[in-house]
Amino acid sequence: MHDLIIIGAGPAGITASVYASRKKMDFLVITQDIGGQAAWSGDIENYTGYQFITGPELTAKFEEHMKKYGSIVKEGEEVLEAGRDSDGIRVKTAKDEYRAKTLIIASGKVSRELGVPGEKEFKNRGLTYCATCDGPLFSAKDVAVIGGGNSALDAALQLVKIARSVHIINNTGRLGGDAVMREKIEAHPIVRIYNNATVTAIIGDTFVKAIRLRAGEKNVELAVQGVFVEIGLVPNSGFAKDVEKNSLGEIRVNCRNETSVPGIFAAGDVTDVPEKQIIIAAGEGSKAALAAFKYISHAR
Amino acid sequence: MHDLIIIGAGPAGITASVYASRKKMDFLVITQDIGGQAAWSGDIENYTGYQFITGPELTAKFEEHMKKYGSIVKEGEEVLEAGRDSDGIRVKTAKDEYRAKTLIIASGKVSRELGVPGEKEFKNRGLTYCATCDGPLFSAKDVAVIGGGNSALDAALQLVKIARSVHIINNTGRLGGDAVMREKIEAHPIVRIYNNATVTAIIGDTFVKAIRLRAGEKNVELAVQGVFVEIGLVPNSGFAKDVEKNSLGEIRVNCRNETSVPGIFAAGDVTDVPEKQIIIAAGEGSKAALAAFKYISHAR
Repeated sequence: MHDLIIIGAGPAGITASVYASRKKMDFLVITQDIGGQAAWSGDIENYTGYQFITGPELTAKFEEHMKKYGSIVKEGEEVLEAGRDSDGIRVKTAKDEYRAKTLIIASGKVSRELGVPGEKEFKNRGLTYCATCDGPLFSAKDVAVIGGGNSALDAALQLVKIARSVHIINNTGRLGGDAVMREKIEAHPIVRIYNNATVTAIIGDTFVKAIRLRAGEKNVELAVQGVFVEIGLVPNSGFAKDVEKNSLGEIRVNCRNETSVPGIFAAGDVTDVPEKQIIIAAGEGSKAALAAFKYISHAR
Repeated sequence: MHDLIIIGAGPAGITASVYASRKKMDFLVITQDIGGQAAWSGDIENYTGYQFITGPELTAKFEEHMKKYGSIVKEGEEVLEAGRDSDGIRVKTAKDEYRAKTLIIASGKVSRELGVPGEKEFKNRGLTYCATCDGPLFSAKDVAVIGGGNSALDAALQLVKIARSVHIINNTGRLGGDAVMREKIEAHPIVRIYNNATVTAIIGDTFVKAIRLRAGEKNVELAVQGVFVEIGLVPNSGFAKDVEKNSLGEIRVNCRNETSVPGIFAAGDVTDVPEKQIIIAAGEGSKAALAAFKYISHAR
């Protein structure tokens, strides 16, 4: 029976672990990977204290910080179910079952799929959800980025350094995201932006060869060898059956990171906190750990 | 008429400025100093991404990050009044008056005073509120730290490296604060802890020579040359007349960092967010800036 289980090791889960360590709580972290969405980010310029750092670099620093305290991290373990019964918190993974007095859900988000023909077929055969991971494979190739928000811009900014041409397929009238990034992209000579455009199919043989678009009234076929899907994220909250969620599947939290179930807290991108930012997730992780600590102190 | 005025340049105000810059808002920062309470911290081990950094070092990184974007920072300017009239936000300082569409109050907290005879007289003559700033002056001297929470422990941990002896005067039955710090302090050979003890007077001639204590039933006089007052902080919110505050003078905010006045947001230690932590203040500063940006976007 641990004091605390933390599900997830992105900025929220890692910061929660740092605070739990410093409060000398007996806890463990269960996570599929380290870093969460931060690990997949390209250039990060808005994590206060680091003017410029890449996602993988910041993730490495986070991971070292977590592990400095000797935290027990169950890496690569998928959570199947997490909830509360009369004996406290129960977390079931494919390998084992764990019990604790409190739980912090910081399991983040995963990429949203396009849902068009060819997507599943060409996944990892030219189609990917991670520019940071796979961008370097497309040196001097023609690529498409699907999406028009910050993560699409971030992917495009990484790809302009690598690819021969970058096509951005945006289904609204104008690119969104931070002005700083948008202006860089709009001014870039190898970028072409398709507004009011939706992808209808991914085509190819062994690998991606083209995408089909509906752009305004026209059907267009665009020859590309790489497709980067950046149309948002869905919360990784399916395993948490009891806690209240909003219509997007995000776990509802109050200002103290409490969910609808006593002893279960949530932090970071999996919650309904509207802005998904690394520095915000880290702050929320700290708040959640301190709230879990208080919960236990009062329960004794 | 600016888009935004940020009052304060601690972790919350600086992070707000980074986000406002990236959203290309027209804003200025008005602040008495840079870094806020973070600048006065000794060793910081819980700002995710920096396993170990001192307060002044982290503050320098924050300041560089803010100034990288060419932000206009009115430093050393005290805000006398800030509020909203029919034309928008008005901020009055001793030197000038500024107007904007939105305001973020991130003015932090200042040290609480003991309120005992001799405190005002010996301020900066042996009595101080900042171990980081003034600790090095007390090499091989006997010093007292007044307080028993994290900031007192932090001060004591700095002073054990400098002073000959460190007396901790704590008015509860046991030291509070993080277990990691408490255990280091309790085990330290030059530290003596007085629990259930209150300071009744500071005495000396030109400089501090001793403090008087009431410890349990006994009156004690302790010969010390340095007194570090670490009994907490009071919010720097006097200039904000209109916004709702709690009984501690902290500005009430909801989960979106909105105060009771439309267009006025608050973040960091000046708010009623219960935990005062650098990483939390930074996250809140980011949320406040994004909320102010949304407010303006919707108002247009």
